Amino acid sequence: MRKVSAGIDIGGTNTVMGIVTDDAKILAEASISTQEYVELADYITAVSATIKKLLAECGDVELRGIGVGVPNGNFYSGTIEMAPNLPWKGKVHLADELGRHFGCKIVVTNDAKAATIGEMVYGGAKGMKNFVMITLGTGLGSGVVVNGGLVYGADGFAGEFGHTTAIPGGRQCGCGRLGCLETYASATGIKRTAFEMMAKYNANSKMRDIPFSKLTSKDIYTLATEGDELAIKCFDYTADILGRKLADLCTVISPEAIFIFGGLANAKELIVDATKKYMEQYMLPVFRNKVKVLPSALLGTNIAVLGASALVAE
Amino acid sequence: MRKVSAGIDIGGTNTVMGIVTDDAKILAEASISTQEYVELADYITAVSATIKKLLAECGDVELRGIGVGVPNGNFYSGTIEMAPNLPWKGKVHLADELGRHFGCKIVVTNDAKAATIGEMVYGGAKGMKNFVMITLGTGLGSGVVVNGGLVYGADGFAGEFGHTTAIPGGRQCGCGRLGCLETYASATGIKRTAFEMMAKYNANSKMRDIPFSKLTSKDIYTLATEGDELAIKCFDYTADILGRKLADLCTVISPEAIFIFGGLANAKELIVDATKKYMEQYMLPVFRNKVKVLPSALLGTNIAVLGASALVAE
Repeated sequence: MRKVSAGIDIGGTNTVMGIVTDDAKILAEASISTQEYVELADYITAVSATIKKLLAECGDVELRGIGVGVPNGNFYSGTIEMAPNLPWKGKVHLADELGRHFGCKIVVTNDAKAATIGEMVYGGAKGMKNFVMITLGTGLGSGVVVNGGLVYGADGFAGEFGHTTAIPGGRQCGCGRLGCLETYASATGIKRTAFEMMAKYNANSKMRDIPFSKLTSKDIYTLATEGDELAIKCFDYTADILGRKLADLCTVISPEAIFIFGGLANAKELIVDATKKYMEQYMLPVFRNKVKVLPSALLGTNIAVLGASALVAE
Repeated sequence: MRKVSAGIDIGGTNTVMGIVTDDAKILAEASISTQEYVELADYITAVSATIKKLLAECGDVELRGIGVGVPNGNFYSGTIEMAPNLPWKGKVHLADELGRHFGCKIVVTNDAKAATIGEMVYGGAKGMKNFVMITLGTGLGSGVVVNGGLVYGADGFAGEFGHTTAIPGGRQCGCGRLGCLETYASATGIKRTAFEMMAKYNANSKMRDIPFSKLTSKDIYTLATEGDELAIKCFDYTADILGRKLADLCTVISPEAIFIFGGLANAKELIVDATKKYMEQYMLPVFRNKVKVLPSALLGTNIAVLGASALVAE
């Protein structure tokens, strides 16, 4: 009987589930709407039914455990706590609730930490004892691995690098603070930068014809590759800020490598390489030319499902 | 036969050595000048002779090992690397050289990490798995403990929190960068702040009669306790910047507590409590009111000698 794990990636819009083998092969995958289930009990029932259906499709397998990556997921308590973009408010006892439907181990963590485990177990960080994972999406998620272990901290919520201050008194962040890194280095951050650049410089740009509500980071990327001066400046500014903040992070934890995941990471030269360039520029001399900055080796895969499933083995 | 460890605290001016019991009692202590020994071989001979003399004074003891805390000390290699304030240039093989004089285990780390081990083994961090140590001296040293272990990182130099950016493009730092935290939050940092405050505000202050080369952080402290408006502003500004940076550090590693050591930490209300106040103000909501900020429980002791000796047991 083949041993498998289930990985669940809970997002604000959809929940993706996969049955994963020990060598990172996804045998079966499905998704359901997250936001449709206002009642937690209904959601748990739907998730459980889907996983059982997927297991049945896989034939003769034994489920060794279920891993869940979810915004504000707490590894220690198996709960989701005050997640702003999920339908269930307050503290949700996810592991306990799911456990009623399954007899196996259930492990919960946040989505960025699940991606970090994914990179460590299946991706470019295999064998590394100290590294950082950065996921550039709507926000900036992160996972920090020290001495071979993911850093959860005293309360399970460590690794919120996106909510460290990039510019004191800077841009308003959804968390209620000012100047958080994710207000600059993320898909929404680079869009905000585009509007600052249009205000600051006179150069022509196709971006000037697109309203704030319509412009996407992908538009900015496409324009940058076409030579649009302002779009290029947007990437340069993003890489500058992210590079400086990563230099700071290196001085505290001295990682071997930094991996970047997410749509923006596909812009390898404009984001990954440019960030590395600025990082070295700001780096404390003793750390210079020691730390690699690499695109995730799992770009294009469902890293959160893979990582969540790997949580079970960890 | 009583088992003891030797702790060596190498500073730019003096080297302090102590013979320490397992219950943190210093049986014998001595110091020699560091800067007097331009040749490393002479220095090693003097240190070895002093430790042997101290051991003889202690009577019937067995030396289990020697721990060394030294600026730019590398735990992994037992070396000192490019320490700007020590007489020996480049890479110094300290553990190997000392080893020729002793048959025991020799462990090297930097001074702030030695203090961190001191707090963990003998001080307020006993039993804590995740905490941060901040030493406020001429500069700002730090040690980070995650999952019960000191963070050395990929190259042994992790924990240089004093060289993360507090203000982008800010004050010139000895490391060659701009805006490092230690140019604000340290004995020299608060002095630099005093001169900014004198430039910015019109209030009278006794500090206006003291030249830059003469003013000390102790002067500023004394004046602040006497009600000097500008001196009070100096502490407030320092606490604001340190509090903001510690809030950032908490979002990444989620410690249980932060300990503050050094002369400035004696200004409990003006530094420790004020830093806590600002830290909470800047803190990401999920971490609010969770992290203690405390003066080191070993204030007034030679924490680096204690910590260095404890390195042996670790």
